Amino acid sequence: MAEQQRARRPGGRSARVRAAVHQAVTDLVAERGYGSFTVGDVAARAGVADTSVYRRWGTLEALLMDVAITRLTTASPVPDTGSLEQDLRVYAAGVARDVNGPDGLAALRLVISLSTAGPDGVQARDAFLAERGRQLQAMLDRARERGEQPPEGLDILDHILAPMYIRSLFGMGPLTAADADTLVDRLLALRAPS
Amino acid sequence: MAEQQRARRPGGRSARVRAAVHQAVTDLVAERGYGSFTVGDVAARAGVADTSVYRRWGTLEALLMDVAITRLTTASPVPDTGSLEQDLRVYAAGVARDVNGPDGLAALRLVISLSTAGPDGVQARDAFLAERGRQLQAMLDRARERGEQPPEGLDILDHILAPMYIRSLFGMGPLTAADADTLVDRLLALRAPS
Repeated sequence: MAEQQRARRPGGRSARVRAAVHQAVTDLVAERGYGSFTVGDVAARAGVADTSVYRRWGTLEALLMDVAITRLTTASPVPDTGSLEQDLRVYAAGVARDVNGPDGLAALRLVISLSTAGPDGVQARDAFLAERGRQLQAMLDRARERGEQPPEGLDILDHILAPMYIRSLFGMGPLTAADADTLVDRLLALRAPS
Repeated sequence: MAEQQRARRPGGRSARVRAAVHQAVTDLVAERGYGSFTVGDVAARAGVADTSVYRRWGTLEALLMDVAITRLTTASPVPDTGSLEQDLRVYAAGVARDVNGPDGLAALRLVISLSTAGPDGVQARDAFLAERGRQLQAMLDRARERGEQPPEGLDILDHILAPMYIRSLFGMGPLTAADADTLVDRLLALRAPS
């Protein structure tokens, strides 16, 4: 009966497998760090067959990236408040909170470490960066449609994300809400006519 | 005879051991990446006893940091041109060139990966950052003594180094001289009276 109910719910089992595998990755990352476990370890921890993981994700790198993108989109959603300045403040404060925590820092380390994980790693990293870039660009496009003059997406990377990421990677945290606001002030000042 | 000549030159043998050990680290990093070799591997490659390495550097992390600091100070010296703007432009251009290359990127990755290498790693990372911070602060102090209004050291990290480091870590290079100059322009504009 329970099995029949599950079978009738499209995606039910699939969603459960995905959640179990994601949780297994998160646990293994916390325990061992990236680069110290295999698809077999993930499958065993999640209680699924190795082949289920390979069929769905293809490579360990693609799986790690799916976990990181899901996490990032949930932990630091790109806001839509109706004003670019407010969007940037909410977004920067969220990123600061996120990289202050161990999971956020671990996700950042993952993106960086994938660069040295061969072509699959580079592909996964670039997919992650492209997805995040699309979300931020949508925020900037909304501002432009409202008649505001948004900065370039690369400016957000250079002057809001990069300082917070590097301070966090260098152990110079925690980042405060004031730090995030100062970075937003400076980014907005860049757009002022010179 | 050759041995006697060496013995008469103070630091001769010591300097040769240091050079051989540094070269061994550089080779092992290039071949295997950080975290994939031991003090024993370094000693064997350099043709010295393990105890020589331990006596001189104490830990693998301290050795790695010595290599990184030596490399950085040689590859990206802090300039003293007599003008803050020129100092910043020369410095930023040098950092851009450095992180575009595999050795510079590897040194940056080392600093980041030491954060997860336990107390010895964190201590080595902090020693590296403190040394670099002192060199940059000396550049800013010289500017202040000349009557210029330099930015804070943290502003150089946030708005010149961090963007270049993150773009490089995310595989968004290579950084051009124009990229470096734009970052310097923006840092200098921050100091303008608002």
